[in-house]
Amino acid sequence: MADGAKQLVRWLDELGRISDESGKLTRTFLSPAMRRANDRVAQWMRAAGLTVREDAVGNLIGRIEAASCRAGSLTPPGLTEVARTSRRGRRPGPTTTKTLLLGSHLDTVRDAGKFDGALGVLLPIVALAELKRRGVALPFAVEVLGFSEEEGVRFASAYLGSKGYAGKLTAADLARRDADGVSVREVIGSWRRGAPAAFLSRAAPSAPRRQQLLGYLEIHIEQGPVLEREKLAVGVVSAIAGQSRFQLTWTGRAGHAGTTPMALRRDALAAAAEFAVGVEALARRTRGLVATIGALSVAPGAANVIPGEVTHTLDVRHADDRARRRARMALGRRATQNAARRPVARAWRRTQENGAVRCAPLLTARLARSAKSVQGRAPSLVSGAGHDGMVISALTPVAMLFVRCRAGLSHHPDEFAAPADLAVALAVVVDFLERLARDNSP
Amino acid sequence: MADGAKQLVRWLDELGRISDESGKLTRTFLSPAMRRANDRVAQWMRAAGLTVREDAVGNLIGRIEAASCRAGSLTPPGLTEVARTSRRGRRPGPTTTKTLLLGSHLDTVRDAGKFDGALGVLLPIVALAELKRRGVALPFAVEVLGFSEEEGVRFASAYLGSKGYAGKLTAADLARRDADGVSVREVIGSWRRGAPAAFLSRAAPSAPRRQQLLGYLEIHIEQGPVLEREKLAVGVVSAIAGQSRFQLTWTGRAGHAGTTPMALRRDALAAAAEFAVGVEALARRTRGLVATIGALSVAPGAANVIPGEVTHTLDVRHADDRARRRARMALGRRATQNAARRPVARAWRRTQENGAVRCAPLLTARLARSAKSVQGRAPSLVSGAGHDGMVISALTPVAMLFVRCRAGLSHHPDEFAAPADLAVALAVVVDFLERLARDNSP
Repeated sequence: MADGAKQLVRWLDELGRISDESGKLTRTFLSPAMRRANDRVAQWMRAAGLTVREDAVGNLIGRIEAASCRAGSLTPPGLTEVARTSRRGRRPGPTTTKTLLLGSHLDTVRDAGKFDGALGVLLPIVALAELKRRGVALPFAVEVLGFSEEEGVRFASAYLGSKGYAGKLTAADLARRDADGVSVREVIGSWRRGAPAAFLSRAAPSAPRRQQLLGYLEIHIEQGPVLEREKLAVGVVSAIAGQSRFQLTWTGRAGHAGTTPMALRRDALAAAAEFAVGVEALARRTRGLVATIGALSVAPGAANVIPGEVTHTLDVRHADDRARRRARMALGRRATQNAARRPVARAWRRTQENGAVRCAPLLTARLARSAKSVQGRAPSLVSGAGHDGMVISALTPVAMLFVRCRAGLSHHPDEFAAPADLAVALAVVVDFLERLARDNSP
Repeated sequence: MADGAKQLVRWLDELGRISDESGKLTRTFLSPAMRRANDRVAQWMRAAGLTVREDAVGNLIGRIEAASCRAGSLTPPGLTEVARTSRRGRRPGPTTTKTLLLGSHLDTVRDAGKFDGALGVLLPIVALAELKRRGVALPFAVEVLGFSEEEGVRFASAYLGSKGYAGKLTAADLARRDADGVSVREVIGSWRRGAPAAFLSRAAPSAPRRQQLLGYLEIHIEQGPVLEREKLAVGVVSAIAGQSRFQLTWTGRAGHAGTTPMALRRDALAAAAEFAVGVEALARRTRGLVATIGALSVAPGAANVIPGEVTHTLDVRHADDRARRRARMALGRRATQNAARRPVARAWRRTQENGAVRCAPLLTARLARSAKSVQGRAPSLVSGAGHDGMVISALTPVAMLFVRCRAGLSHHPDEFAAPADLAVALAVVVDFLERLARDNSP
């Protein structure tokens, strides 16, 4: 296992140097660096015994077929949530061999760290190699997915890769244009003309069928500080938080900072500050809620002028949609009250709204059992950030494993997960696959 | 008097169209528009019987000599503060005829209103014309001053005009450079080469001597909302507030807005907001204090990132320096306490410090008597903004008359003082000069 973790570190290092920008890691949707990254990861996949293809949107897919295919035993016991997705009830045969998905994304933000995304693609390859070394025969197929887009950098729209894989790309998605005016559709066309012939011949034009899938496991750095505080290498995600995002504007009246007495002011920043204090207080006293004012601008914005207008964002997240809705309403009331107490008006506009996604209970329980068996404890975490699993959850049950990262830092070149933690994560995934295989044996 | 006010409105309109930018009023230190403005105001001065010169920094000075010069009566009774400035005690004669100064500045901010500054230069000319019409002989000389710089636009340094007049320009002032890299010294050189010969021949190279002066009266729009609230045309300034200006920086740690629980955050904006609420609360409960956070910036400043650093200004003013000092210390303690309660550091840097300037009590009492005689009441106001009178107070006793302006608005094209209020201000100044003349008569 130690060798496997070393391999993983080497691969993360090498992949982290495949970039569109020199001196920093930036790899966006279907860029030249992504071509090189897919080609390199494909080599590693093949070396581990996987056959490799790319789908229509540049997702890299390494597949290993089931070692044995016994009718009636394709759904491991205790995974009824998986069984339920197989609605048509037809008798499983070679063409309906079930497939477990593992993966994450191969694109990055600008000036990124080397773990976000890449870890969830490379770790499963190492895990499969380890199982092969141990002679473990998996009674189900496995696909390792390297999604081509998750960060939303090039087209200001995230999850193009997993949406493409799940057959959820809309005409509007395809018509989006990047900063150079090139559309998603055009980028995909060029990409496929430049792809190796071996990939193209294996391209799967349609989305995988729901009833063929066992589930999806994503390994990802935590991007938060909880595991570090808990002094644990890995944690199991219970849900991906729902998110409401708003833009608020407080409108008072600009005035001379020297000549306008306090009682006659209509200070937009004072109103916004009072609201910000309330936002923090509510989030602090509401378990599981996070609320953030991340961007704020003041107009006119001069030292000697009372602010006439303040605009700021508000981001509210919770794993429970009802709790988020309650918080949203409480903050709305607070803004209204603040504005009523002052000669300042407030406008409140919702800019984004995503419901929470609960991870699949049974698949997650299996993952937690493996985590507990490896590190003694299996803390349950809520993911405050969105992940490919959100999109894939429409297709198949989803579980997620988080790996501790230093200082909770991500989207930054200093992003770091310790080799020892990667080894723990690898051991958990190997254990998870072994148990799944064992439970599936006669 | 009604005719005088109409004249004043016409002049303000015409001067308000003499600009360096088309479509808006912008007239900066020794700009081409200021050349035209000085020439036009000089014509109006001459028509009112003043002789006109420019001094070395482009201040326009219109002078009317004393009508009679009776030895021993040059200091009107009750103006002992003025008498005290005449330290050398030599017997007054023609060369020591005392001079009363009236004035303000002829430069403007960018996209300015037409009253700020111009009113205090033009109103005295109309007042002197009115006295001439009434046959009032002034037993002292009068100089009407149009300072060439007060707003600090071109060289980011205010009061170049009045500092030049008072002989207070330093080598550092003269070495300052504008956005084009031209120094104050160079600008002054070019200006004097382009000035009419008549002005140059009369240029006074040295500052006026303290003992030659009776005092300085400045008429200015209030730039605040107090007179409007009091429903009065004019008020008498008791003091120009002292001012402390700071730059504060709150340093926490940027983090993911979704994945960082509230308890683990080091949110710089939450800390700054808490401080801002405290600033407003202290100023509201401290009589006469104004405190303003006018500019604030957030880094990184993205909706989904917890603010790692916030920088903002803090402007604190009070007419009483001890009260301002107490407020400054209370706010400093509050910032320290806020920073101590949170894992956020604060840095606090003073960027400006001006002591309060009390207007001269006797000259101000005379002005108040005239204001009361004209409008029934003479409310006492503190000027929260700085004025040329601050600089001139080092030279001679200073009094200031404020004129109501709509909505307290200034530094804006909508800046407005009603003709009826200008008529009241004009009547007050005429009354003030008449009484000063009468008290000076045998």
